Amino acid sequence: MDFNVVNLKEKARKILELHKYKIVAQMNDYQFKLVKARREFVWHQHPETDEVFMVIEGVLRIELRDKVLTLHEGEMVVIPKGVEHRPACDDVVCCLLIEPTGTANTGSAGGALTDTDLEWI
Amino acid sequence: MDFNVVNLKEKARKILELHKYKIVAQMNDYQFKLVKARREFVWHQHPETDEVFMVIEGVLRIELRDKVLTLHEGEMVVIPKGVEHRPACDDVVCCLLIEPTGTANTGSAGGALTDTDLEWI
Repeated sequence: MDFNVVNLKEKARKILELHKYKIVAQMNDYQFKLVKARREFVWHQHPETDEVFMVIEGVLRIELRDKVLTLHEGEMVVIPKGVEHRPACDDVVCCLLIEPTGTANTGSAGGALTDTDLEWI
Repeated sequence: MDFNVVNLKEKARKILELHKYKIVAQMNDYQFKLVKARREFVWHQHPETDEVFMVIEGVLRIELRDKVLTLHEGEMVVIPKGVEHRPACDDVVCCLLIEPTGTANTGSAGGALTDTDLEWI
């Protein structure tokens, strides 16, 4: 069994490529995924699950249809299932996502930005 | 719907009493609970679920039957279901716990340290 302590900033330093989701932990059927990003993502929603964003480094903007959330380091938010959102950032941000195993990053939108090749780090 | 951004250190500053679990977020049927502690807790395990500990401030020791994990700020670990553990700390630590709603802090051990009176902050 894996009792390794996960240092989130150390894991972040190991991520050298943008927009590739890296699994750092699993709790029951939920995965904890780190991603470094610098982009405006696609509008999407997850019809089956809530989704947690926690910022490890940088600033993340989450656009909703009627407002914009801004998350700094040490901040988190739960995007409820079915709610359209678009993550975006002007500079590189490192986020921890928490969601059920198999949840697609693009949700119901699909498309070219879908990342299905997740590896553990 | 609640889209409030949760700043974990700001929430921690609002907690003035030790050993009372405060809910700060919910994702599906999982709750995110902050607790400030300075104690050696009881040995216990959760027969039905894994449990995540993430340290927000301070240092947390998690004793297992065959080793001791030490978590600093920004570090997390998943304690698998059924694994006996005893959280402990010499100075005040603030931890984020992630586990299914209704998971008792004392797991299968029960007893006087069980906290059933959880409030949102």
